Amino acid sequence: MSERIRVALDAMGGDNAPKEIVKGAIEAVQEKDNIKVFLVGKKVSIENELSKYQYNKEQIEIVSAEEVITNDEAPVMAIRSKKNSSIVAGMNLVKSGGADAFVSAGSTGAILVGGQVIVGRIKGVERPPLAPVIPTMDGVSLLIDCGANVDARASHLVQFAKMGSAYMEKIVGIQNPRVAIVNIGAEEEKGNALVKETFPLLKNCKDINFIGSIEAREIPNGQADVIVCEAFVGNVILKLYEGLANALVGKIKESLMETARGKIGGAFIKPVLKNTFQKFKASDYGGAPLLGLKGLVVKAHGNSNSTEIKNSIIQCVTFSEQKINETIRDMIENVESQK
Amino acid sequence: MSERIRVALDAMGGDNAPKEIVKGAIEAVQEKDNIKVFLVGKKVSIENELSKYQYNKEQIEIVSAEEVITNDEAPVMAIRSKKNSSIVAGMNLVKSGGADAFVSAGSTGAILVGGQVIVGRIKGVERPPLAPVIPTMDGVSLLIDCGANVDARASHLVQFAKMGSAYMEKIVGIQNPRVAIVNIGAEEEKGNALVKETFPLLKNCKDINFIGSIEAREIPNGQADVIVCEAFVGNVILKLYEGLANALVGKIKESLMETARGKIGGAFIKPVLKNTFQKFKASDYGGAPLLGLKGLVVKAHGNSNSTEIKNSIIQCVTFSEQKINETIRDMIENVESQK
Repeated sequence: MSERIRVALDAMGGDNAPKEIVKGAIEAVQEKDNIKVFLVGKKVSIENELSKYQYNKEQIEIVSAEEVITNDEAPVMAIRSKKNSSIVAGMNLVKSGGADAFVSAGSTGAILVGGQVIVGRIKGVERPPLAPVIPTMDGVSLLIDCGANVDARASHLVQFAKMGSAYMEKIVGIQNPRVAIVNIGAEEEKGNALVKETFPLLKNCKDINFIGSIEAREIPNGQADVIVCEAFVGNVILKLYEGLANALVGKIKESLMETARGKIGGAFIKPVLKNTFQKFKASDYGGAPLLGLKGLVVKAHGNSNSTEIKNSIIQCVTFSEQKINETIRDMIENVESQK
Repeated sequence: MSERIRVALDAMGGDNAPKEIVKGAIEAVQEKDNIKVFLVGKKVSIENELSKYQYNKEQIEIVSAEEVITNDEAPVMAIRSKKNSSIVAGMNLVKSGGADAFVSAGSTGAILVGGQVIVGRIKGVERPPLAPVIPTMDGVSLLIDCGANVDARASHLVQFAKMGSAYMEKIVGIQNPRVAIVNIGAEEEKGNALVKETFPLLKNCKDINFIGSIEAREIPNGQADVIVCEAFVGNVILKLYEGLANALVGKIKESLMETARGKIGGAFIKPVLKNTFQKFKASDYGGAPLLGLKGLVVKAHGNSNSTEIKNSIIQCVTFSEQKINETIRDMIENVESQK
C-alpha cells in the first residue's frame, strides 16, 4: 500500500460540527484506505462522536485544540489570538509537514487569513484565490476567485487563470481547459477597467487556452472550464447560483401543489426533479481549494453534511497525487523568469 | 379623454425588428386608448408591417429615419454620425418635447450614450443608471445599475438608491421600498472598497429605507425591493438570472425525457412548469428604464417579442403619469442643497 495522504480536518468548523464532520471523516476512511485523517478540535466532543462508529484506528487520530474561531470573529484577530483553535492548530500541522492538507467548514475569513499567514504562499504567488467548482449543463467549471481577494489587480487575475487551468487539467481531468474572463459583453473592448487591463494580458499568456470573455448568461452552459473573475463578482455568481436554484425549486413545488394535475404529475417526476436540482447544487462538488499555498487548504461549505466533508477529504488525495502545487510553482516561476 | 402619452418607438431595434416591434405598437394602442406611438424607422418597412393590422390611425404615426445603428457599432461614434438613425431621431423627438418617452430594443450602448448626449440628464444626476425589474419568489425587485456605468463611484450608487426607491414606490406601487446594497457578506465591514465607502452614505440617507447589505443568494427571495450595485455586478446578476433559469429548464426537460415515468409526469406538469419559469423570465417585466434623464428612455430586451414591446410602451404611461422625473429631481436637489 502506498503511503497515506494525511488530512487535518477542522472538527469544530461549520453549522453541523462536530457531528457531521466526524461522520464525514469516518465515511472517507471507510471508502479509501490511503487516507489518514487528523480530527482537530475539542478532544472530548470528538471522542464522543467517534465512539458511535467502527473504523480502522490507524486512519483516524485526534489532535486536541480546545479553542474555536466563530464566523463573527474578525479573522485577523482570531488567527492571531486563538493559537489553540482548530483552524490554527490544523494549519500548523500542514505548515510543519505533519499533514498534507487542511479541510474546514468554518469561518471563510479565518481560513483565508490563516492560509496566507500560517501555511504561506508559494513563492511568486501574489494572492491565493478561492476556487470552487460549479455545476453546468454538461459538467463542471472552476470559478476563480470567488471570495478571497476583493479589489484584485490584473496581475492577480492572470495568476488565477494559470492556477485554475492547472487545477482543471490535473484534478478534474480536462485536457487544455478553456479559460475565459467574466465580462459584460463578448468583445475585447467591453468591460470595466480591471477586465480591460486583464484581457490583453490573458491573451498573451502562452501556457493557458484563453478563449476570451464569457457573459454570466453563458456560465451555466459550460462554455468555459475556468472562469476567471475578481472575488466580489465571483462571490455574487456563486451565491446567486445557489439562491436561484433554491428559489426555482421552491416555486415549482409550490406550483405543483396548487392543482390536482400538478400533484399527480409531481408524484411521477419527483425523483427526476430532485436529481436535476441535485446536480445544480454547487455544494456537492467537494470544497473550494485555496490555491497557491505551500500546502493544500480546502474550504468546505458552511452547512456541509458528512457527504460533503467526505468529498472534500477525498479531493485532497487527488490534489496531492497530482502534485498541483508543483505545477503551479512551475507556471508561476515560468512567468517570473520571463519578466 | 385625457391627453395621450406619446411614445417614440424604435421600429428598427432588436432581433425581431420591425415585425414584432410594429406588432407590439399595435397591441399597445389596441389595449390603451391613452397612448400614441411614433414608429421611428424605415418608412417603407414600417408601412408594410402596419398594413397587416386594423387600428386607430390617430394613435400611430410613422417618423421616417432611414439609418439603423447596429449592435456591433461603437456607440459614441454611431450616435454622432448616424443623425438619421431610428435611435437618434427617436431621442430627438423626446428632447424637443414631441414625445414623452423613447423605447428601443436596439443597441444598449447606443441607447445609453444617446440618452445622456441627446435627451440629457436631470440637473444634479451624475450618472443615469439602467434599472430593470427582476422576478423574485413573491414579486419583483429593481436591479440598479445593471449595465450603464461600470466603475461607478460611491456618490453614484447613492443616487441610484434614491432613483430606484422613487421608481419602486411610484411605478410598482411598493410603499417605503427596502433598499439594499449587493455585498459578499451581511456585515457592514464586509465588501470591496466601493461597497465599504457606499454603505455608510446609504445608512445616512434620510429619504430612503436602507436595510443594509444583501448577498446574491437572497436576491431571488425578494429580500429587498431596490438592489443597488455597480453596473458590472448588476449585469452579471441579470444575465446569470437568465442563463441559470434557461439551463435548469433545459436540464429538467432532458431528464424528464430519459425515463417513461418522467415522460408521463412531464405531460401532467408541463403547464405548471412553463408557468413557473415564465414568472422567472426577467424579460417579461417590460423594459429597463434609464433613470435620471430629462425624458423617459426605456431599453427593451434585444430579443423582445410583441408582448414585451407592448409592456414597455404601457410602462411609459405609468412613468409619465406618476411624474417620476419630478420626484427624482426633488430627491437629487434635496441632497444637493444639503451639501
